[in-house]
Amino acid sequence: MISKNRISQIRKLHAKKFRDESGLFLVEGYKSVEMLCASDFEVEEIFATENALTDNAVWLSSLSPTLVTAEEMSRISTMQTPPELLAIALQRQSLPDIPAEQPVLALDHISDPGNLGTIIRTADWFDIQHIVCSPDCVEFYNPKVIQATMGSFTHIHVHYRSLPEFLKQESTYRRILGTFLGGEDIRRFEFNRNDILVIGNESNGISAEVASTVTRRITIPTAAQGRDTAESLNAAVAAAVVMFRMTGC
Amino acid sequence: MISKNRISQIRKLHAKKFRDESGLFLVEGYKSVEMLCASDFEVEEIFATENALTDNAVWLSSLSPTLVTAEEMSRISTMQTPPELLAIALQRQSLPDIPAEQPVLALDHISDPGNLGTIIRTADWFDIQHIVCSPDCVEFYNPKVIQATMGSFTHIHVHYRSLPEFLKQESTYRRILGTFLGGEDIRRFEFNRNDILVIGNESNGISAEVASTVTRRITIPTAAQGRDTAESLNAAVAAAVVMFRMTGC
Repeated sequence: MISKNRISQIRKLHAKKFRDESGLFLVEGYKSVEMLCASDFEVEEIFATENALTDNAVWLSSLSPTLVTAEEMSRISTMQTPPELLAIALQRQSLPDIPAEQPVLALDHISDPGNLGTIIRTADWFDIQHIVCSPDCVEFYNPKVIQATMGSFTHIHVHYRSLPEFLKQESTYRRILGTFLGGEDIRRFEFNRNDILVIGNESNGISAEVASTVTRRITIPTAAQGRDTAESLNAAVAAAVVMFRMTGC
Repeated sequence: MISKNRISQIRKLHAKKFRDESGLFLVEGYKSVEMLCASDFEVEEIFATENALTDNAVWLSSLSPTLVTAEEMSRISTMQTPPELLAIALQRQSLPDIPAEQPVLALDHISDPGNLGTIIRTADWFDIQHIVCSPDCVEFYNPKVIQATMGSFTHIHVHYRSLPEFLKQESTYRRILGTFLGGEDIRRFEFNRNDILVIGNESNGISAEVASTVTRRITIPTAAQGRDTAESLNAAVAAAVVMFRMTGC
């Protein structure tokens, strides 16, 4: 059972303002809730439909979920097709330090939640465990970001910091790579284990201030010759292709 | 000026049924309309706001656009933030044959329009000019697909065919590659110029019937060792990483 008051409390978490104030966030769908429960995130409450309980009786019953109707679920969920499972969890209070010997991804004003979520999922696959977002990136706890990570939000540490400051500091002992047209071809570029890779905004690329901290400019070459081609790659796709090369054996 | 009747005609094109019946589709936003006009697609009508006319007077006036108010644009557009420019164009009546010596992408039940659009954009970048979609893939002329291609819908030929049939036929003279867990590592795999790459559904991967036509199983290895990682990559990301290797010099 869930009260009307509780429903409206949960619906408030659809908005960043209330997520910030409460320090809570929503996790929706089987896979994401399953990975949430297997992680060190603290879970406040889990809501399950009858269907979810029937399909996952053993696993779910140990979590004492609150039973809701499909209609109640559709009210508390942010998804167009409401999930069978939804959890409220506590945002992390602190993040581990960024190790000097590990690769890092720096995101300069990534604004699409699907892109940020996909980048986090891909970073997880390629073992880049720390991502530093500029303050104007979309919020990590946005439900669409969490959704698009497919559970990888539990594995990857996403920091929010002023990028020019952070990158200037880091550049004293490691390289800052940025993707630009006309840079060095990533097929032949020799990556170092602890490079930082900067990915720019979907429309405007890397901002001038951040660009000035980049120590090596790299490029994913187009294969098309002698014809008009795409002018650029999607930000999550570009990030993925470079991460593939960066973390390659 | 645009009549109420015309507005409701255009709004019908938001639905696949009416796109199919009329053979028309919508193109929204500066970049996409610009690339549409530079292509061999036949354009039926262009709608522009006052803003668009002010910003692009020279280019636009040669196209004799219909002037609409911002409010009218928001009614005919499918976008949450309505564009300044929208065009109605004719769907292609026919597509060129698929050359035997070129690489091809085969998409098995890609259902997310953003993924299909991003895959088309990436294929354009890596010069894979023919994509064969299974009939249950999302529709090429879906406005969200067109949008996500960022204009590459004008460069790439997207066919819809039964994949098992098409792939069986093609496999008599070229290889059919499919991405699976535990396949050959793409970092060391030797690609041929005319390989066909199969990408599977976002949740279920490559279907059993299509999988039976695959002649080589390949894998994008995860870089993470000794910890839980993402279980898979986003379909558009996986396609991009393999295309990068496939079309590499």
